[in-house]
Amino acid sequence: MEFTSHMGLALEEARAAAARGEVPVGAVVLGPDGTVLARAGNRVMADHDPSAHAEVLAIRDACKRLGSERLVGCSLYVTLEPCAMCAGLIGQARIARLYYGAHDPKSGGVMHGARVLSQPQAHHKPEIYDGICEMEAAYLLRDFFEAKRG
Amino acid sequence: MEFTSHMGLALEEARAAAARGEVPVGAVVLGPDGTVLARAGNRVMADHDPSAHAEVLAIRDACKRLGSERLVGCSLYVTLEPCAMCAGLIGQARIARLYYGAHDPKSGGVMHGARVLSQPQAHHKPEIYDGICEMEAAYLLRDFFEAKRG
Repeated sequence: MEFTSHMGLALEEARAAAARGEVPVGAVVLGPDGTVLARAGNRVMADHDPSAHAEVLAIRDACKRLGSERLVGCSLYVTLEPCAMCAGLIGQARIARLYYGAHDPKSGGVMHGARVLSQPQAHHKPEIYDGICEMEAAYLLRDFFEAKRG
Repeated sequence: MEFTSHMGLALEEARAAAARGEVPVGAVVLGPDGTVLARAGNRVMADHDPSAHAEVLAIRDACKRLGSERLVGCSLYVTLEPCAMCAGLIGQARIARLYYGAHDPKSGGVMHGARVLSQPQAHHKPEIYDGICEMEAAYLLRDFFEAKRG
């Protein structure tokens, strides 16, 4: 199915992030016609940048590619429920559809915690589809943190 | 007083942003010893980057300067109440103290809406001081939007 293959690209980015020692989260932005505009994995440690979550990097790259600060009609695939920062950016960027993998009760900001996109105040709310390839995304994270605890 | 002079730098950045046609918001990051580590104004339009809020740019620059993804002991001055995205980043970056100017009931994510830093789930909550040079920050924004509506 189409959305599992798009999430497959995001999972590839997550695995590459893990190989760099980063929390394994990956993201892909698709244009309105389904073209892959950008893909990225977490680079917080490598770039010494607390904003360098996979979603932020992919959205910034897609905007650069389109020469626009808005991604109208675009879709974002991300392996983990976005945090409050990323959820805020998804709204700012006017992403049309958000597909995510694993839920994140501890740090998620979409279905948990700040529920940024569900506030009456949110300027824009994308369609949200959760649980896409959820187990694979969750296992990647579990393995990463288990190995870290050693 | 010290905190009004730091906010004065942020207001300078906000005025420079307005002169570029950007929403006039400015931010300054100070190190634990009070040194100015970074200052920035909004660059969303200029950079075609929906994440290029003043706070994000200043925090990213300060992190680059320190070679760290955390700004432990640092302070952030910003002319407007941060949105949910910026509030999330302030938490991620472990900013110790947040000083802001005007309240933003429409798009703020600290005292309004998602209240990102007040969630039980927030990993880190800075000390928060609001209303610093509030009128000056608010007038800048009002003048900008009035001129835009023309």
